[in-house]
Amino acid sequence: MEIETERVGFFVNGWQWFKGIPLNAGAAVVGFAEQARKIASDDPRKLIHSLKVGLALSLVSLFYYFQPLYSSFGVSAMWAVMTVVVVFEFSVGATLGKGVNRGLATLAAGALGLGAHHLATVTGKTWEPILIGLFVFVQAVASTFIRFFPRVKARYDYGVLIFILTFCLVSISGLRTDEIVDFAQKRFSTIVIGATTCVVISILVYPVWAGEDLHNLVAKNMDKLGNFLEAFGDECFTRPEGVRPALVGLQPILDSKSSEETLANFARWEPGHGKFMYRHPWKQYLKIASLTRHCAYRVEPLNAYLQSQTQAPQEIQEIISRMSTESGKALKELAWTVQTMTRPDSHESNLRIASKNLHSLLKSDFWEEQTDISLVIPVAAVASLLSDIVSCVEAIAEAIDELSSLAHFKQPDDKDKASSHFSVVVDDHDQVKQESKSSAVEILVV
Amino acid sequence: MEIETERVGFFVNGWQWFKGIPLNAGAAVVGFAEQARKIASDDPRKLIHSLKVGLALSLVSLFYYFQPLYSSFGVSAMWAVMTVVVVFEFSVGATLGKGVNRGLATLAAGALGLGAHHLATVTGKTWEPILIGLFVFVQAVASTFIRFFPRVKARYDYGVLIFILTFCLVSISGLRTDEIVDFAQKRFSTIVIGATTCVVISILVYPVWAGEDLHNLVAKNMDKLGNFLEAFGDECFTRPEGVRPALVGLQPILDSKSSEETLANFARWEPGHGKFMYRHPWKQYLKIASLTRHCAYRVEPLNAYLQSQTQAPQEIQEIISRMSTESGKALKELAWTVQTMTRPDSHESNLRIASKNLHSLLKSDFWEEQTDISLVIPVAAVASLLSDIVSCVEAIAEAIDELSSLAHFKQPDDKDKASSHFSVVVDDHDQVKQESKSSAVEILVV
Repeated sequence: MEIETERVGFFVNGWQWFKGIPLNAGAAVVGFAEQARKIASDDPRKLIHSLKVGLALSLVSLFYYFQPLYSSFGVSAMWAVMTVVVVFEFSVGATLGKGVNRGLATLAAGALGLGAHHLATVTGKTWEPILIGLFVFVQAVASTFIRFFPRVKARYDYGVLIFILTFCLVSISGLRTDEIVDFAQKRFSTIVIGATTCVVISILVYPVWAGEDLHNLVAKNMDKLGNFLEAFGDECFTRPEGVRPALVGLQPILDSKSSEETLANFARWEPGHGKFMYRHPWKQYLKIASLTRHCAYRVEPLNAYLQSQTQAPQEIQEIISRMSTESGKALKELAWTVQTMTRPDSHESNLRIASKNLHSLLKSDFWEEQTDISLVIPVAAVASLLSDIVSCVEAIAEAIDELSSLAHFKQPDDKDKASSHFSVVVDDHDQVKQESKSSAVEILVV
Repeated sequence: MEIETERVGFFVNGWQWFKGIPLNAGAAVVGFAEQARKIASDDPRKLIHSLKVGLALSLVSLFYYFQPLYSSFGVSAMWAVMTVVVVFEFSVGATLGKGVNRGLATLAAGALGLGAHHLATVTGKTWEPILIGLFVFVQAVASTFIRFFPRVKARYDYGVLIFILTFCLVSISGLRTDEIVDFAQKRFSTIVIGATTCVVISILVYPVWAGEDLHNLVAKNMDKLGNFLEAFGDECFTRPEGVRPALVGLQPILDSKSSEETLANFARWEPGHGKFMYRHPWKQYLKIASLTRHCAYRVEPLNAYLQSQTQAPQEIQEIISRMSTESGKALKELAWTVQTMTRPDSHESNLRIASKNLHSLLKSDFWEEQTDISLVIPVAAVASLLSDIVSCVEAIAEAIDELSSLAHFKQPDDKDKASSHFSVVVDDHDQVKQESKSSAVEILVV
């Protein structure tokens, strides 16, 4: 009887599960569509990038459609399709870097492969395969090892990969076909066609510049940190019920290192565009970003004191509030300087005054009046962290000063107008897109 | 006369430059060799990996050497060579992930491509190219967009890339050749051969397990942080001339997020090996690593107080020293727990006592005796940070406790013996290599 019940239960469960399939599938589709909608609305450039890839692939597949094109390249046209799929990346810099790597590596490895083939043929039929095998092995070992060099890994990793690939294909194919020169030449020309298609489309159609992204990211992170410090200055002693949105979300700043380095590596491949010249000092952005992160390490522990029950003397409270607010303002000012590429005019002087006030207060005998020292300790900790933060902000200001002379920032003139415009530039995707578009036109003119 | 001097100067400079070529080239070669030697001695597995790639490439190129093999695959053997070059990665997990992605994506896209080709042929000669073009465009746009989904990007990015590639190749080739089924089948089988060669060699010859690297990295970072805290406890009030080596090098811990996530992604592909089963809780390692980083954010500001002229009362100094040392010891104990996978037996109880001492001291009226409060402030800041650090260490201990039950850590038995062995396991490359080797043998048995 029990078995019977179990069996019925099994069937009922099975039926429930079976009935659930359309529901589950429906839920999965809805979830998928929701996620896709979110990604596309968060950054419409991702949708546009997908359309660009489709366009590039359709263009190179024309080699198969038209007889005259097909008869000159034949099956090698396949290399053009492959090149588009693997070379077309999100930003112009990444696409250019991969395209140039692939083109040059194919050229170099093709030439060397032909040389190896020639050398092996001279030695006669018996030695030929042995020599080719030896070349392939030695070349693969050496090139794979070179990929571990940090500088090669950062900029030429893909090139070395393609070098290994092409050398092997050209030199090994030589064993079986005499049309090896033709093979190498067709491979090279179709790859150049594919890579050029990618680069041209990525520059002309709504270009995404890695350099501009890096520029905006660095400015935005400083701005966020500044907002945090301002909000902390307002609220560190008021302890409101809810937490203001500016007081969360430091984590992305703390974790930004790898994405900044990737963007800087891509940006170095990019030609001049918009307000950035070729060889814009991207490395200096990394320095600023690293200092900003250093500052964020000091800001993050402040979070813990928002909830603490501090009842510091009124005067101290005011000075700490003031110092946090001024640090925040200075950081936002610096973010504005970077974003608009306008020379700073020492707006952190307010910060220096506040910092001086704090230091003189800390050294005054005012504190001796305080009897309950356990209440002073969290305040002392906050003051100490803030004094560190001020040093960090000063270091950032110095690095931005260097950047402003390296990148020839313009003198401030219509500053107030630009200042009110700032938050728009940082937050508005359409704005960034508009700028990218106009810079593409400039490139065409250059 | 001046022009004459200039010309002479030009020739002299030119000659100097010319003479310099061999010297410069010599220096470059020496620098290159030095860097190569350093990379190979820092991590000999990189050299071994290069040799493994050479071996795999030599093996698959046999398809070209032997007539019976060549006659069954022909030029398609090229796909096997390509697969080896792009699939063979440093760790087993990465190689397996890429191999499986490439294999499955080729199978799926090949089948779909054949279906698309069939559908297009049915509609007649005029509509065929139009339909194929449409399929290629829609598929490329959709797949490229799907690559932006965070979950797809983390694990299946390469698979989607190969899916786009294969679908385009198979469906477009259908326009020009009737042997499209043969083409798809040959592409698939050669890719499987190439991928299998990579996976087998990467598992059998000195395997590098991403999971083991993650395991060691997480333990090593905790150990480093513990060393720092111990050294800080010893030296925060003695201010020696030089800085002890343990007090530098927190930066790698702060920046470890992306490498840990990459390793965890790779580790999930790996079969059970050594002391790790398949589906080992790698995600929990990421949680521990994130908490360790959080702790490091609090430890990093301590650096600033090493140089500060603190003259705190003796009793406070001792308690702070003690607390830092105990936090360091607790962290090192936890690192040991993870490294040896032995259940912890609450060794952080000392830490709790020290922490309690500090809190009661901070609340005592002992401080009222101190008249010069400006000297107490840095001490208060350090005490406050340390109290945060203790909470972090407790959170880490909790996460490790979870890990120990998820991963079925063994009960401590011959603990003392293992403890003395610990630093050897963490630091010694050969040791790690030895373990990897023996775990490969175990896999063979399984």
